[in-house]
Amino acid sequence: MTDASLAVSTVIFALRSSGRFGEDAGERRLWLPLVRRIREPFDGKWALPGGPLGAGEGLAEAATSTLARTTGLSPRYLEQLYAFGDPGRSGENAGSADGAACGGRVVSVVYWALVGDEEARAARVGQNVRWFPADELPPLAFDHELIVEYALWRLRNKVEYSRIASAFLGGSFTLAQLREVYEAVLGRALDPANFRRQIEASGVLEDTGEVLTGVRHRPPRLYRYNEAVDLADQGPLGRLAQK
Amino acid sequence: MTDASLAVSTVIFALRSSGRFGEDAGERRLWLPLVRRIREPFDGKWALPGGPLGAGEGLAEAATSTLARTTGLSPRYLEQLYAFGDPGRSGENAGSADGAACGGRVVSVVYWALVGDEEARAARVGQNVRWFPADELPPLAFDHELIVEYALWRLRNKVEYSRIASAFLGGSFTLAQLREVYEAVLGRALDPANFRRQIEASGVLEDTGEVLTGVRHRPPRLYRYNEAVDLADQGPLGRLAQK
Repeated sequence: MTDASLAVSTVIFALRSSGRFGEDAGERRLWLPLVRRIREPFDGKWALPGGPLGAGEGLAEAATSTLARTTGLSPRYLEQLYAFGDPGRSGENAGSADGAACGGRVVSVVYWALVGDEEARAARVGQNVRWFPADELPPLAFDHELIVEYALWRLRNKVEYSRIASAFLGGSFTLAQLREVYEAVLGRALDPANFRRQIEASGVLEDTGEVLTGVRHRPPRLYRYNEAVDLADQGPLGRLAQK
Repeated sequence: MTDASLAVSTVIFALRSSGRFGEDAGERRLWLPLVRRIREPFDGKWALPGGPLGAGEGLAEAATSTLARTTGLSPRYLEQLYAFGDPGRSGENAGSADGAACGGRVVSVVYWALVGDEEARAARVGQNVRWFPADELPPLAFDHELIVEYALWRLRNKVEYSRIASAFLGGSFTLAQLREVYEAVLGRALDPANFRRQIEASGVLEDTGEVLTGVRHRPPRLYRYNEAVDLADQGPLGRLAQK
């Protein structure tokens, strides 16, 4: 008989320019929303958005609901990260009355999600919700610092898959825009000519046949992510990972 | 307030020669142990080893306990696969009385594990436990067929990491033995010379300085997996993944 209850939390990434979230100024950085707790344990501390798993609710569905409730956004990309469940992680030994009716320990199934640029800019920010740059986070409740670290690592490893970078950008984009996403996520500059060569060799993009409007002299071509290429990425869970 | 209870299941892989499990005859195949259910739902059907998460028990710890209880073995490799939790997966709509006290739905955190050759050969097989070739499984309870499919896919993708192949073989091995593991997992023959070249170029093996005993003429060299190379594989969860 288990003592554990289930929660679903979500690490949500958006790429925005530096400066105050919502303002367009300077190079792009990763931002994520956090929620300030209003009860023990860790009252007053910032934590990942999330909550108990509702009756009849699927795991990915719960993650998407959390995302909508916290930020007003829907994800461009969503993937299960990991289930964190070691005893003591949820402060159940801290003498609080916050445990669920079935016991003190909380096992969190954590998802990570990417939201788009324009959407994050327009997002309503709920009470107790604030966006922070991923490299300037406050101290977090529970084991959420480890969770964020793992989600960042997963994102940085997966950005090699243009699907992820494309999710930040939306429908179509130039190679320069794609490269800037890689640079913001990886935290370092990439040589433009090498980048172009590698992306073209990978075959993961398709030319839309259009060019960027508003540029008079040699407007850059617009590409989009080639969905067909990446079905192998998730294996048999490809369908589940996107629900 | 959640309606879900937690379980931990384990997909356990061993590499054995074909023929009856425990006999040494012919080429190697993947085998996994299943448990025959003795209650509803799916009474009489084969299922993955597992059980409810015990009080104060970590997730990986629960997976290891299941492994020991079912097969008498400890894992050479253990990794969390995925949390499966969609409503309806555990037959809670089938009108059975098998739900845990906190509600009908079961969320399973699934681990996959590799056990070694000699150990699997000597393993005690508990009541209602039987080993099956991975490509000749009986119909399974719940969504366990999907879970096994995903675990196989993950294993086949990861075998490129010699760490995984090495886990099947134990301490030290020849290149031919390593290649046979790859071939058994991937289900196809590999060119020996190309294989040797790729492995040597990868730098993931270290020469033990010893050779295989009992071979008089040009005995093959023995290698072992170079632990230091692969710490990056798990990122920040490297420690957690191995607990």
